[in-house]
Amino acid sequence: MPAAPAKSRPRKHLRPASPWEARRRPRHEHALKREAVIHAAARAFRERGYHNTSLDDLAASLKVTKPTLYLYVPNKEAILFECFRAGLAPIQETLDQCERASGPARERLFAFIRGYAAAIVGNFGWCMLRAEDQHLGATMSRRIKLLKAGIDKRMRALIEAGIADGSIRQCDARMTTFALAGALNWMGHWYREDASLKPQQIADRFIDVFNHGLRGRD
Amino acid sequence: MPAAPAKSRPRKHLRPASPWEARRRPRHEHALKREAVIHAAARAFRERGYHNTSLDDLAASLKVTKPTLYLYVPNKEAILFECFRAGLAPIQETLDQCERASGPARERLFAFIRGYAAAIVGNFGWCMLRAEDQHLGATMSRRIKLLKAGIDKRMRALIEAGIADGSIRQCDARMTTFALAGALNWMGHWYREDASLKPQQIADRFIDVFNHGLRGRD
Repeated sequence: MPAAPAKSRPRKHLRPASPWEARRRPRHEHALKREAVIHAAARAFRERGYHNTSLDDLAASLKVTKPTLYLYVPNKEAILFECFRAGLAPIQETLDQCERASGPARERLFAFIRGYAAAIVGNFGWCMLRAEDQHLGATMSRRIKLLKAGIDKRMRALIEAGIADGSIRQCDARMTTFALAGALNWMGHWYREDASLKPQQIADRFIDVFNHGLRGRD
Repeated sequence: MPAAPAKSRPRKHLRPASPWEARRRPRHEHALKREAVIHAAARAFRERGYHNTSLDDLAASLKVTKPTLYLYVPNKEAILFECFRAGLAPIQETLDQCERASGPARERLFAFIRGYAAAIVGNFGWCMLRAEDQHLGATMSRRIKLLKAGIDKRMRALIEAGIADGSIRQCDARMTTFALAGALNWMGHWYREDASLKPQQIADRFIDVFNHGLRGRD
């Protein structure tokens, strides 16, 4: 947590609201503060919207000046991109693990669904749903689309591996990927207002539906 | 189509780019022009983003002045709300039909999926994915959330009816609703760039997955 001061040197009062108030440490200080900027921005973007959050607001929330922010990030668009990358990172890690694991691909796909559900309700998960398109210039938007397409491709490969090993029945792997990604990303919309289930419980319900289907008696 | 002049009086040249250029007709003229504003706005919002589209841009695209726009709509937020309502209308109609129809609820749910898929790739469908939250004031945002929640509730009732009539196996109706709504709404993200399948074909693939599940051999 970038906002916490060094644990070995407790301060008299509460932990500072901003890492700029913390005791200076020579190492990693720049990286920690940059991370704090991105965390604070992710929170503000999610709560108030990207367009309704100015760098002035962000600077104020961190108790620094706007010129100070520019020491860490070049502009607001770059911050959103970093939020997106931070949101993507745990999803990519889960994919790495599921690709490396052994066992039927269906089980590995379901493990991925569990990891994805946890990531999507995290601090940066909403970016998967909203960072795209409208907020960013063409170049940045393309970079995000490419990163997202990479995730889709790997999900699809996992489904295809399942069809190949027989653990997943014959289906349209591309459409199944889109259906799964949609179900999971949509959590970013409703989860905060309806958090009666933990992400792992939601993932288990989704897995139940995607595993067995809805078909009852005919 | 609001942009077309009266068919009985063909004009020498191509149809006008704006209904303000069409021959004036006493009846429905205001409603037609209002509809044209909303159609043009939906297109602009989808292509350039809500925040990147000004009322000046919109007026220019319709070849009118901004004060003329105000004869039809009070502000940009109200236009987005109308886009959202227009996106919702065919979904609500499909629901009406599926609720009234006879037969097992699973079949009626699948008919709804087909209608929803067609609606989501329509002119206003993207609003289901994006109109919310960030763009609108609290009151407007709440109204949209309520309308969306109404759709969710009716989808869920259809699933519960299927569990009751035995056509849908026991499952978490609420989570199944969210999974289905997510899969369908997500089409608004990827469909334009990957339109190799028609909405009905996509719906059929989704139905296959949601009906039979992915489970292959164990």
